[in-house]
Amino acid sequence: MSFAVGDAAEIRMTVTDEIVRNFGHLIGDLNPVHFDEQFAAGTRFKKRIAHGMIGASMISAVLGTKLPGPGTIYLSQTLKFAAPVYLGQTVIARVEIIAIRDDKPILTLKTTCTTDDGTIVLTGEAVTLFEV
Amino acid sequence: MSFAVGDAAEIRMTVTDEIVRNFGHLIGDLNPVHFDEQFAAGTRFKKRIAHGMIGASMISAVLGTKLPGPGTIYLSQTLKFAAPVYLGQTVIARVEIIAIRDDKPILTLKTTCTTDDGTIVLTGEAVTLFEV
Repeated sequence: MSFAVGDAAEIRMTVTDEIVRNFGHLIGDLNPVHFDEQFAAGTRFKKRIAHGMIGASMISAVLGTKLPGPGTIYLSQTLKFAAPVYLGQTVIARVEIIAIRDDKPILTLKTTCTTDDGTIVLTGEAVTLFEV
Repeated sequence: MSFAVGDAAEIRMTVTDEIVRNFGHLIGDLNPVHFDEQFAAGTRFKKRIAHGMIGASMISAVLGTKLPGPGTIYLSQTLKFAAPVYLGQTVIARVEIIAIRDDKPILTLKTTCTTDDGTIVLTGEAVTLFEV
Protein backbone atom coordinates (compact mmCIF):
# COMPACT_ATOMS: atom_id res chain seq x y z
CA MET A 1 0.00 0.00 0.00
CA SER A 2 1.04 3.53 -0.70
CA PHE A 3 0.39 6.54 1.49
CA ALA A 4 1.05 10.26 1.10
CA VAL A 5 1.19 13.16 3.51
CA GLY A 6 -2.22 14.80 3.45
CA ASP A 7 -4.19 11.57 2.99
CA ALA A 8 -7.17 11.73 5.33
CA ALA A 9 -10.18 9.69 6.39
CA GLU A 10 -13.03 10.06 8.85
CA ILE A 11 -16.00 8.35 10.43
CA ARG A 12 -18.96 9.90 12.12
CA MET A 13 -21.29 8.61 14.80
CA THR A 14 -24.11 10.11 16.84
CA VAL A 15 -23.26 9.50 20.48
CA THR A 16 -26.63 8.46 21.85
CA ASP A 17 -27.63 7.80 25.44
CA GLU A 18 -27.66 4.09 24.56
CA ILE A 19 -24.06 4.18 23.30
CA VAL A 20 -22.88 5.97 26.46
CA ARG A 21 -24.70 3.48 28.70
CA ASN A 22 -23.41 0.48 26.77
CA PHE A 23 -19.85 1.82 26.70
CA GLY A 24 -19.87 2.53 30.44
CA HIS A 25 -21.21 -0.89 31.37
CA LEU A 26 -18.87 -2.65 28.95
CA ILE A 27 -15.73 -1.00 30.37
CA GLY A 28 -16.94 -0.60 33.94
CA ASP A 29 -16.91 3.19 33.79
CA LEU A 30 -20.01 4.25 35.70
CA ASN A 31 -18.70 7.73 36.53
CA PRO A 32 -21.87 9.66 37.45
CA VAL A 33 -21.03 12.51 35.06
CA HIS A 34 -22.01 10.03 32.32
CA PHE A 35 -24.98 8.42 34.09
CA ASP A 36 -26.51 10.74 36.68
CA GLU A 37 -28.27 13.89 35.43
CA GLN A 38 -28.43 15.38 38.92
CA PHE A 39 -24.70 14.87 39.55
CA ALA A 40 -23.87 16.26 36.10
CA ALA A 41 -25.95 19.37 36.81
CA GLY A 42 -23.51 20.21 39.62
CA THR A 43 -20.45 20.04 37.35
CA ARG A 44 -19.08 22.62 34.91
CA PHE A 45 -20.72 20.62 32.14
CA LYS A 46 -24.28 21.10 33.54
CA LYS A 47 -25.51 18.02 31.63
CA ARG A 48 -24.40 14.40 31.24
CA ILE A 49 -21.46 14.03 28.89
CA ALA A 50 -20.10 11.13 26.86
CA HIS A 51 -16.95 9.27 27.88
CA GLY A 52 -13.94 10.96 26.26
CA MET A 53 -12.67 7.53 25.31
CA ILE A 54 -15.62 7.09 22.93
CA GLY A 55 -14.09 9.75 20.70
CA ALA A 56 -10.64 8.24 21.19
CA SER A 57 -12.01 4.85 20.21
CA MET A 58 -13.54 6.34 17.08
CA ILE A 59 -10.06 7.59 16.11
CA SER A 60 -8.73 4.09 16.61
CA ALA A 61 -11.58 2.80 14.45
CA VAL A 62 -10.64 5.11 11.56
CA LEU A 63 -7.00 4.05 11.82
CA GLY A 64 -7.83 0.35 11.92
CA THR A 65 -10.51 0.26 9.26
CA LYS A 66 -9.84 3.14 6.82
CA LEU A 67 -6.45 4.87 7.02
CA PRO A 68 -3.96 3.20 7.24
CA GLY A 69 -6.62 0.39 7.48
CA PRO A 70 -6.38 -3.32 8.30
CA GLY A 71 -2.75 -4.24 8.93
CA THR A 72 -2.21 -1.14 11.05
CA ILE A 73 -0.25 -1.63 14.25
CA TYR A 74 -1.02 1.06 16.76
CA LEU A 75 2.17 2.33 18.39
CA SER A 76 1.04 5.41 20.27
CA GLN A 77 -1.62 8.06 20.63
CA THR A 78 -1.84 11.41 22.39
CA LEU A 79 -5.20 12.79 23.41
CA LYS A 80 -6.20 16.27 24.55
CA PHE A 81 -9.79 16.51 25.67
CA ALA A 82 -10.67 20.00 24.52
CA ALA A 83 -14.42 20.09 25.09
CA PRO A 84 -17.20 17.77 26.24
CA VAL A 85 -19.46 15.74 23.95
CA TYR A 86 -23.09 15.91 25.04
CA LEU A 87 -25.48 13.04 24.49
CA GLY A 88 -27.08 13.17 21.07
CA GLN A 89 -24.23 15.07 19.42
CA THR A 90 -22.64 13.69 16.28
CA VAL A 91 -18.88 13.23 16.45
CA ILE A 92 -16.64 13.24 13.39
CA ALA A 93 -13.32 11.46 14.00
CA ARG A 94 -10.72 12.43 11.40
CA VAL A 95 -7.15 11.29 10.81
CA GLU A 96 -4.66 12.89 8.44
CA ILE A 97 -1.15 11.72 7.62
CA ILE A 98 1.37 14.41 8.60
CA ALA A 99 4.63 12.44 8.35
CA ILE A 100 5.95 9.24 6.79
CA ARG A 101 9.30 7.76 7.77
CA ASP A 102 11.71 6.94 4.96
CA ASP A 103 13.20 3.83 6.53
CA LYS A 104 10.11 2.10 7.89
CA PRO A 105 6.36 2.14 7.13
CA ILE A 106 5.74 4.32 10.18
CA LEU A 107 3.15 7.06 9.82
CA THR A 108 2.33 9.99 12.08
CA LEU A 109 -1.25 11.18 11.85
CA LYS A 110 -3.02 14.22 13.20
CA THR A 111 -6.17 12.98 14.93
CA THR A 112 -9.15 15.18 15.65
CA CYS A 113 -12.71 14.73 16.87
CA THR A 114 -15.20 17.48 16.11
CA THR A 115 -18.89 17.75 16.91
CA ASP A 116 -21.29 18.60 14.13
CA ASP A 117 -21.57 22.20 15.38
CA GLY A 118 -17.87 22.58 14.54
CA THR A 119 -16.48 22.36 18.09
CA ILE A 120 -13.14 20.57 18.35
CA VAL A 121 -13.55 18.14 21.23
CA LEU A 122 -10.40 16.02 20.95
CA THR A 123 -6.99 16.59 19.40
CA GLY A 124 -3.83 14.53 19.29
CA GLU A 125 -1.41 12.49 17.23
CA ALA A 126 -1.21 8.82 16.40
CA VAL A 127 1.86 6.85 15.33
CA THR A 128 1.24 3.63 13.45
CA LEU A 129 3.27 0.89 11.83
CA PHE A 130 1.85 -0.66 8.70
CA GLU A 131 2.51 -4.24 7.77
CA VAL A 132 0.86 -7.20 6.01
CA MET B 1 -10.63 15.84 48.72
CA SER B 2 -6.98 15.36 49.43
CA PHE B 3 -4.48 13.55 47.24
CA ALA B 4 -0.82 12.67 47.65
CA VAL B 5 1.93 11.66 45.26
CA GLY B 6 2.07 7.87 45.32
CA ASP B 7 -1.69 7.36 45.74
CA ALA B 8 -2.73 4.58 43.37
CA ALA B 9 -5.80 2.64 42.29
CA GLU B 10 -6.59 -0.09 39.80
CA ILE B 11 -9.35 -2.11 38.19
CA ARG B 12 -9.10 -5.45 36.46
CA MET B 13 -11.19 -7.05 33.76
CA THR B 14 -10.93 -10.21 31.70
CA VAL B 15 -11.10 -9.18 28.06
CA THR B 16 -13.40 -11.82 26.64
CA ASP B 17 -14.37 -12.48 23.05
CA GLU B 18 -17.79 -11.03 23.91
CA ILE B 19 -16.28 -7.76 25.19
CA VAL B 20 -14.14 -7.37 22.06
CA ARG B 21 -17.12 -8.03 19.79
CA ASN B 22 -19.38 -5.65 21.71
CA PHE B 23 -16.72 -2.94 21.83
CA GLY B 24 -16.04 -3.23 18.10
CA HIS B 25 -19.69 -3.08 17.13
CA LEU B 26 -20.41 -0.22 19.56
CA ILE B 27 -17.64 2.00 18.17
CA GLY B 28 -17.69 0.73 14.60
CA ASP B 29 -14.19 -0.76 14.77
CA LEU B 30 -14.47 -4.01 12.85
CA ASN B 31 -10.74 -4.19 12.05
CA PRO B 32 -10.25 -7.87 11.12
CA VAL B 33 -7.33 -8.26 13.54
CA HIS B 34 -10.01 -8.18 16.23
CA PHE B 35 -12.66 -10.23 14.43
CA ASP B 36 -11.13 -12.56 11.85
CA GLU B 37 -8.97 -15.43 13.10
CA GLN B 38 -7.62 -16.15 9.61
CA PHE B 39 -6.59 -12.53 9.01
CA ALA B 40 -5.02 -12.35 12.48
CA ALA B 41 -3.00 -15.51 11.77
CA GLY B 42 -1.21 -13.59 9.01
CA THR B 43 -0.16 -10.74 11.30
CA ARG B 44 2.73 -10.53 13.76
CA PHE B 45 0.22 -11.26 16.52
CA LYS B 46 -0.79 -14.68 15.07
CA LYS B 47 -4.10 -14.59 16.91
CA ARG B 48 -6.97 -12.13 17.30
CA ILE B 49 -6.16 -9.29 19.70
CA ALA B 50 -8.29 -6.90 21.72
CA HIS B 51 -8.71 -3.27 20.72
CA GLY B 52 -5.97 -1.20 22.39
CA MET B 53 -8.61 1.36 23.33
CA ILE B 54 -10.23 -1.19 25.67
CA GLY B 55 -7.20 -0.88 27.95
CA ALA B 56 -7.17 2.89 27.48
CA SER B 57 -10.84 3.01 28.41
CA MET B 58 -10.13 0.98 31.55
CA ILE B 59 -7.60 3.66 32.56
CA SER B 60 -10.27 6.30 32.05
CA ALA B 61 -12.61 4.18 34.18
CA VAL B 62 -10.14 4.10 37.08
CA LEU B 63 -9.65 7.86 36.85
CA GLY B 64 -13.38 8.58 36.73
CA THR B 65 -14.56 6.15 39.37
CA LYS B 66 -11.67 5.58 41.81
CA LEU B 67 -8.74 8.01 41.65
CA PRO B 68 -9.27 10.95 41.47
CA GLY B 69 -12.89 9.64 41.15
CA PRO B 70 -16.18 11.38 40.34
CA GLY B 71 -15.55 15.07 39.74
CA THR B 72 -12.49 14.32 37.62
CA ILE B 73 -12.13 16.34 34.44
CA TYR B 74 -9.94 14.57 31.94
CA LEU B 75 -7.48 17.00 30.35
CA SER B 76 -5.09 14.73 28.47
CA GLN B 77 -3.74 11.22 28.09
CA THR B 78 -0.73 9.70 26.35
CA LEU B 79 -0.80 6.07 25.31
CA LYS B 80 1.99 3.76 24.19
CA PHE B 81 0.77 0.38 23.04
CA ALA B 82 3.62 -1.84 24.20
CA ALA B 83 2.19 -5.32 23.62
CA PRO B 84 -1.05 -6.92 22.43
CA VAL B 85 -3.84 -8.18 24.68
CA TYR B 86 -5.12 -11.56 23.55
CA LEU B 87 -8.71 -12.62 24.06
CA GLY B 88 -9.28 -14.16 27.45
CA GLN B 89 -6.41 -12.31 29.14
CA THR B 90 -7.07 -10.32 32.29
CA VAL B 91 -5.97 -6.68 32.16
CA ILE B 92 -5.08 -4.65 35.24
CA ALA B 93 -5.37 -0.89 34.64
CA ARG B 94 -3.48 1.09 37.27
CA VAL B 95 -3.08 4.80 37.89
CA GLU B 96 -0.64 6.45 40.29
CA ILE B 97 -0.31 10.13 41.13
CA ILE B 98 3.16 11.35 40.20
CA ALA B 99 2.70 15.12 40.46
CA ILE B 100 0.28 17.62 42.00
CA ARG B 101 0.28 21.28 41.05
CA ASP B 102 0.47 23.78 43.86
CA ASP B 103 -1.75 26.41 42.33
CA LYS B 104 -4.58 24.29 40.91
CA PRO B 105 -6.07 20.84 41.65
CA ILE B 106 -4.30 19.41 38.60
CA LEU B 107 -2.83 15.94 38.95
CA THR B 108 -0.46 14.02 36.69
CA LEU B 109 -0.81 10.27 36.90
CA LYS B 110 1.28 7.43 35.55
CA THR B 111 -1.10 5.06 33.79
CA THR B 112 -0.28 1.45 33.05
CA CYS B 113 -2.10 -1.63 31.80
CA THR B 114 -0.59 -5.01 32.56
CA THR B 115 -1.85 -8.49 31.71
CA ASP B 116 -2.04 -11.05 34.50
CA ASP B 117 1.15 -12.73 33.26
CA GLY B 118 3.00 -9.52 34.13
CA THR B 119 3.36 -8.13 30.60
CA ILE B 120 3.09 -4.36 30.35
CA VAL B 121 0.72 -3.73 27.45
CA LEU B 122 0.03 -0.01 27.74
CA THR B 123 1.91 2.89 29.33
CA GLY B 124 1.29 6.61 29.47
CA GLU B 125 0.37 9.61 31.53
CA ALA B 126 -2.91 11.27 32.33
CA VAL B 127 -3.50 14.86 33.41
CA THR B 128 -6.72 15.59 35.28
CA LEU B 129 -8.41 18.54 36.91
CA PHE B 130 -10.40 17.82 40.01
CA GLU B 131 -13.44 19.86 40.94
CA VAL B 132 -16.85 19.53 42.65
